[in-house]
Amino acid sequence: MTRILLTGAGGFIGRAVADRLNAQGHEVHGIGRSPAGPPGVRWHVGDLLHPDAAAIPERVGAEQLIHLAWCTDPATYRQSAENLAWTEASIRLLRAFAAAGGRRAVLAGTVFEYDWTDGACVERETPLRPDTVYGSCKQALSTLVEAAATALQLSCAWGRVFWLYGPHEQPGRLVSSLIAGLEAGESVRLGPGAARRDYLHVHDVARALAAVAASGVEGPVNIGAGTALSVAEIAERVGALIGRPELVKLGARPAAPGEPPLVVADVRRLRDEVGFRPALDLDSGLRQTIAWWRAARAGVTAPPGRPAA
Amino acid sequence: MTRILLTGAGGFIGRAVADRLNAQGHEVHGIGRSPAGPPGVRWHVGDLLHPDAAAIPERVGAEQLIHLAWCTDPATYRQSAENLAWTEASIRLLRAFAAAGGRRAVLAGTVFEYDWTDGACVERETPLRPDTVYGSCKQALSTLVEAAATALQLSCAWGRVFWLYGPHEQPGRLVSSLIAGLEAGESVRLGPGAARRDYLHVHDVARALAAVAASGVEGPVNIGAGTALSVAEIAERVGALIGRPELVKLGARPAAPGEPPLVVADVRRLRDEVGFRPALDLDSGLRQTIAWWRAARAGVTAPPGRPAA
Repeated sequence: MTRILLTGAGGFIGRAVADRLNAQGHEVHGIGRSPAGPPGVRWHVGDLLHPDAAAIPERVGAEQLIHLAWCTDPATYRQSAENLAWTEASIRLLRAFAAAGGRRAVLAGTVFEYDWTDGACVERETPLRPDTVYGSCKQALSTLVEAAATALQLSCAWGRVFWLYGPHEQPGRLVSSLIAGLEAGESVRLGPGAARRDYLHVHDVARALAAVAASGVEGPVNIGAGTALSVAEIAERVGALIGRPELVKLGARPAAPGEPPLVVADVRRLRDEVGFRPALDLDSGLRQTIAWWRAARAGVTAPPGRPAA
Repeated sequence: MTRILLTGAGGFIGRAVADRLNAQGHEVHGIGRSPAGPPGVRWHVGDLLHPDAAAIPERVGAEQLIHLAWCTDPATYRQSAENLAWTEASIRLLRAFAAAGGRRAVLAGTVFEYDWTDGACVERETPLRPDTVYGSCKQALSTLVEAAATALQLSCAWGRVFWLYGPHEQPGRLVSSLIAGLEAGESVRLGPGAARRDYLHVHDVARALAAVAASGVEGPVNIGAGTALSVAEIAERVGALIGRPELVKLGARPAAPGEPPLVVADVRRLRDEVGFRPALDLDSGLRQTIAWWRAARAGVTAPPGRPAA
């Protein structure tokens, strides 16, 4: 049992990580602005963007930190100045965690840090060339985390998360809009769908992040499946599994200009050093997501929607 | 006349920048922990490392920011955790400056951001590969400054400062220890001195930074002479100008292991886009520095020593 401070515990990835850590028997503490956190998380009300949040790690006394909180509004996060606020907050949190005796930290990076020219993204080999404020801030933070590892004598890993899908995904992303549309009997208009991307179910992303935290692996680690699927393949599988393939309108929109044909994670570090392998393939992951969606719509679980920050 | 907020105004470079900006007729405001700042600087007492300092830009209402403050203790700055604190403080300051209506910011970067393998350092071409916490934090901040330029609609430049010398240099650096030793009639023991570096007099560094601020140039700009001098050449010139060449003991110490033979600034941006040329060559710069040192020792000016932060 490890005491773990988890930020973003109410978010898309964070709630899956909280579930995973709880299932592993860890003591999970969360920070957030909401009055209460998700089930199984010992909750500390606080705003990470406010300097006062620097007092929370001392109160929690966690051995490990998993820092996922960030601005996530799909409409604005790419170029928002909030990325700078979250970078500042992340350094503050990391320094406060180290000052409170923390030993190991895992922070969330992103595929948007990489130069996508070569397709396969390899940690410490593929150049970093973000073209968004979001990607730049994450890239800068990855450099700062490595500096913090040296200067604060922390063991730090940086999980570069690729694409993902699953329960609690925000509306308007690929899989969430496909399921929402097809379940409502509406056609979903997509581009040609030739671009291939590395998609992992959020439960596997959570398992991978928990495995990275438990390992001693330091520095950047890609969090991906290691295989690329075309948007068309994913869309067609969702159509088939829901039983409405005719509603998937591939080619109804033009391809996005300048979109790279292939972006895939090199997962040698994740597989060989962390020892992680995905539990869900695309079909089982999509089935699970569709079942969750139907249960949520039927009121069996909380309704889907934008997760709390 | 521009209202300029200058941080590090009591430091080695900062006091020279304050003098330069004053001579140009600008209204110079400074922030620092000291009860009073250098002459000609409207002083605001505050600790940039404390979140409360975020209120100062609003009070000052400056159009431009020149941010030089950083940890500078020669014994510890390379690997100190203070570099992380200064990075956090710098993002906070930049955000507060933008929120207060600031328009243009110039921040100090360093030659220690670059990979030194190729000798000549070219902005946006030479890879960045810092091998210190200091260099990593400055590199990360340079990325964040570019992100801030986009997200906060600020005009930002990043002045990568190479080596320098001049009045108020801290004890124990190359030129300051040569002058202090030779003036005291003591021999100064150096390595072979074959390594060539880009040295600029601090008054020229200050002129360059003021020129960058006044220009519209954005992104990284090397602040250097554009020519490299060997440590032996500099030491021999100091010996000759002081009249004690026999006290300069080149080769008395071994060469530092792994020291790159040449590091020099590519100054095309500084010369062609900013329009800057150095006013002082090595001989005139060293003469000025020796004269300042003698005057300081004679009590004509303040004694040399570690500049205030």
